[in-house]
Amino acid sequence: MDKILRIDVGAEGGPKATTVPIGEYAGLGGRALTSAIVSKEVPAASHPLGEENKLVIAPGLLSGSMSAMSGRISVGAKSPLTGGIKEANSGGQPSQVLARLGYAAIVLEGKPKGDDLYKIFINKDGVKISVDNTLKMFGNYDVVEKMKKEFGEKIACISIGPAGEMKLAASSVAFTDMELRPTRHAGRGGMGAVMGSKGVKVIVLDDTGMSMRQPKDADKFKEVNKKWIAGLQAHGVTGQALPAYGTNVLTNIINEAGGYPTYNFKEGRFAGAAKISGEVEAETETKRGGVATHGCHSGCVIRCSGIYNDKDGHYLTKQPEYETVWAHGGNCGIDDLDTIAMLDFLDDNYGLDTIDMGAAIGVAMEAGLLKFGDGQGAINLIKEVGKGTPLGRIIGSGAAVTGKVLGVERVPVVKGQAMPAYDPRAVQGIGVTYATSPMGADHTSGYAVTSNILGVGGTVDPLRPEGQVALSRALQIATAFIDSLGMCIFTAFALMDQPETNQALIDLVNAFYGWNWTADDTAEFGKKVLTMERDFNARAGFTKEQDRLPLFMKNQPLAPHNVTFQVTDEELDQVFNW
Amino acid sequence: MDKILRIDVGAEGGPKATTVPIGEYAGLGGRALTSAIVSKEVPAASHPLGEENKLVIAPGLLSGSMSAMSGRISVGAKSPLTGGIKEANSGGQPSQVLARLGYAAIVLEGKPKGDDLYKIFINKDGVKISVDNTLKMFGNYDVVEKMKKEFGEKIACISIGPAGEMKLAASSVAFTDMELRPTRHAGRGGMGAVMGSKGVKVIVLDDTGMSMRQPKDADKFKEVNKKWIAGLQAHGVTGQALPAYGTNVLTNIINEAGGYPTYNFKEGRFAGAAKISGEVEAETETKRGGVATHGCHSGCVIRCSGIYNDKDGHYLTKQPEYETVWAHGGNCGIDDLDTIAMLDFLDDNYGLDTIDMGAAIGVAMEAGLLKFGDGQGAINLIKEVGKGTPLGRIIGSGAAVTGKVLGVERVPVVKGQAMPAYDPRAVQGIGVTYATSPMGADHTSGYAVTSNILGVGGTVDPLRPEGQVALSRALQIATAFIDSLGMCIFTAFALMDQPETNQALIDLVNAFYGWNWTADDTAEFGKKVLTMERDFNARAGFTKEQDRLPLFMKNQPLAPHNVTFQVTDEELDQVFNW
Repeated sequence: MDKILRIDVGAEGGPKATTVPIGEYAGLGGRALTSAIVSKEVPAASHPLGEENKLVIAPGLLSGSMSAMSGRISVGAKSPLTGGIKEANSGGQPSQVLARLGYAAIVLEGKPKGDDLYKIFINKDGVKISVDNTLKMFGNYDVVEKMKKEFGEKIACISIGPAGEMKLAASSVAFTDMELRPTRHAGRGGMGAVMGSKGVKVIVLDDTGMSMRQPKDADKFKEVNKKWIAGLQAHGVTGQALPAYGTNVLTNIINEAGGYPTYNFKEGRFAGAAKISGEVEAETETKRGGVATHGCHSGCVIRCSGIYNDKDGHYLTKQPEYETVWAHGGNCGIDDLDTIAMLDFLDDNYGLDTIDMGAAIGVAMEAGLLKFGDGQGAINLIKEVGKGTPLGRIIGSGAAVTGKVLGVERVPVVKGQAMPAYDPRAVQGIGVTYATSPMGADHTSGYAVTSNILGVGGTVDPLRPEGQVALSRALQIATAFIDSLGMCIFTAFALMDQPETNQALIDLVNAFYGWNWTADDTAEFGKKVLTMERDFNARAGFTKEQDRLPLFMKNQPLAPHNVTFQVTDEELDQVFNW
Repeated sequence: MDKILRIDVGAEGGPKATTVPIGEYAGLGGRALTSAIVSKEVPAASHPLGEENKLVIAPGLLSGSMSAMSGRISVGAKSPLTGGIKEANSGGQPSQVLARLGYAAIVLEGKPKGDDLYKIFINKDGVKISVDNTLKMFGNYDVVEKMKKEFGEKIACISIGPAGEMKLAASSVAFTDMELRPTRHAGRGGMGAVMGSKGVKVIVLDDTGMSMRQPKDADKFKEVNKKWIAGLQAHGVTGQALPAYGTNVLTNIINEAGGYPTYNFKEGRFAGAAKISGEVEAETETKRGGVATHGCHSGCVIRCSGIYNDKDGHYLTKQPEYETVWAHGGNCGIDDLDTIAMLDFLDDNYGLDTIDMGAAIGVAMEAGLLKFGDGQGAINLIKEVGKGTPLGRIIGSGAAVTGKVLGVERVPVVKGQAMPAYDPRAVQGIGVTYATSPMGADHTSGYAVTSNILGVGGTVDPLRPEGQVALSRALQIATAFIDSLGMCIFTAFALMDQPETNQALIDLVNAFYGWNWTADDTAEFGKKVLTMERDFNARAGFTKEQDRLPLFMKNQPLAPHNVTFQVTDEELDQVFNW
């Protein structure tokens, strides 16, 4: 991972690949690397779909190594959704494969001269770029099938669906899982549109002939990796709850807490929650011959994913995640898991962020375009996106644009990005993260649900403003570090509760790179990443006024607790005042 | 004009009107008054369609008086299009009528409790508000016809069409002309959507029984008004060019100058310009029994408007203005006046800003949705807006949203508002105004075309950056004053070239109000208005980064002069450093 693959898609005669040393970016990976390149090389005033923007795909610092949970890959660019810097990360296989191929990042830059669609094949022998217009408007599943026929089964794919080709602002970049299905997504912020604007449909990776990345201190690394795994398995969330029920274990918990955004963030509790809970989902999967406990990438020991079959026992989609189940479920008043699973499949296939899709449909329901609870209507709407009809393009542009075009006032977005599955009024810590994260509303960038609801990393009353800023600040800093390692964010549960597991993670990095980092160093690293990101956003015209929740969160109390968001603007402005 | 009519549309039992003294806002009118009320009373973080926003309709300080050209009326609110403060002003009769009824402003505030549509009738006896759901989705022409039947012919109307009811971000507020037709519009920034969000379809004014507003010094006022009129008639632009050919006299001039944005701002000269010029337009109007020289409001002595009949000699629309002829003409590659006139009629009837509509269609053409030059396609698109189809809602949301939804990079907007009919690369002074005006891209807020192209108020080379900032600054300050008087901006031609006419205007104000203002005082007044507006925008999260043209203006040279926009960011930041 000491080299960067730069592909100038606008070169004379077609895209041109150049491999360059990592140089000034040495020591960076994942989010730190995507944000460093975007912040340094992309003019903040660029059009997100223009020549000056760059799409950066970077495995984490520990990806491709033997360390457990290190399979996250970061995608960064100036976002067509938020207008600011964006890092969205994903599970799946490509992170490990790309890292083993030795690339710290792939950077797509420039602007294609024509309308051709490109596929890029990367293996130990180098990079081949070819025109493949037969792939035009293919769904991600069909793209991967075609690549399997062409390149065999030992590949991993990074692709976009029709949504990315259409440059829709809520389009994702898909990554294949262990079954070579395009089920893992860098969903947020329209990274698929940026890839589409570069004319690249799919990147096929084959690490045949390459081996695991080797640590500087192999013995030490092996030893702390065992502690690392033991720590993850010892914690209740990562060792039991997530493996058993997946992320969707949260449905009952958040609903019970009254923070489950229902009917487009109108209420905090959904009557149909039990029917779409993780417990029911796991039971359904097992009964139908699917899988309830499964990793999304090799090296995963938490295994919060799964496989969801239809009523006839045929594969329908991967286990829909909590955020997806909520976005298409409670947020739209839909309480049918099969409908939600179908929406999950369609989103994955078209290449769409499930959170912004669920939020956009919720806003469309609020506008009266269809009724809350209308599952078939929701499926039809997502199909419109796949077809690229005007209505589909509205929805595919995300909740903010949908709200603007349909004249809706209650639109749950920050910086143009839809809020995930926790209402900030009943989970005020996550509200601080939504408001202030440089990424727009994003639960993963500072998951305060931990101490607010789950009793992980201490306890902070979710309904009161006290302590939320400090909580979100600490989490945003820690997350920027974890996102740079390629580590799954779910390791944070164990990291927060078990000092020895936290130390094991630092030891892993030190053993791998021969560094001597302390906990303070990792915090400094996280702060540097956040500072780069906020600096880009400032140059793009963001101020503290963009670090705010929509006004209805302050004015409209949320049932059942009848609370509004209580953290003041002045407190929000202290998040990055460390 | 010492009272303000406040209508709380969210009051229990339906909208409630209260007339209050002008109080702290005394001495303000037109734009100064709308911006003062919005800046002071509307929280900058409000949703533009929400309870906290207010729609302010204010005649100018001299409206309703005997002074010529004082019939402009200002409409202000937080804009659904730009997210910033907005003042859009219009000609037509309502300014004079509302002023004679004694109201300095109408303020619509609050949020209606239901979906009822209201009409408001105001005469010397007071205010009557009633539900009239029969008007739902009526075009402006039908609304006015119905009001005539109900209230007689001695009325003036302020109304919205279906676009405003649908809360589309490019919807206008319509004002009736001397023939009681809804042909004059406060077009920019989605003021129609704000009126729609307040549930008000039409405001009917009847000043029967009221008389002309009386100046403090009647003799002096009469005397300087004569000088004022003589000055306007003596100037070549206001005395000859505008009366003869209307605003569309500019087509040949700007096209010849190479600054006529063609094919969505791709080129600076349009081959079909001669066919849609003001000369041809005036000839066509006269030949068909229309009118080529006509005022838009009583008291107008420039008479740049007209009446455009169809081929059979029947009324089709008022004389389409230069901006409209360009937006639907050269910008879309359309060179047929009848097509453009039909588009003008449809925009007026649905209640849409012709500039943002032409720009949105140009962007849709760039996206390949229809071909440049497809006049029938453009008509069909605007009809989609009237019907409220998804495609129509996209277009009706303006060029910025259209570009986002269709994935287009070349989108000619600043602060979300479409650029008018002068390419900033070939008319660099207007580029400074587009970039820095608190209103978003707006030619009327600092019409540097004067010295850049028309040789009015001196000469500044349009293709070079030198002198443009000082020019735009002076014009923006002067315009903020003129917009507050209710004076038509076209008086500026004479004001800039003839010191005695400029003095006559100041004398008019002084004679009317008993003031002793100097030229310096008027400049201070203009600066105060701009400062209030910029202060609101700053609180809404705008920085200098929003005071920028889109990047393609700096990167893509414009034929035939092959120039890019040369004014630096640092220079732009000096515009308000007075």
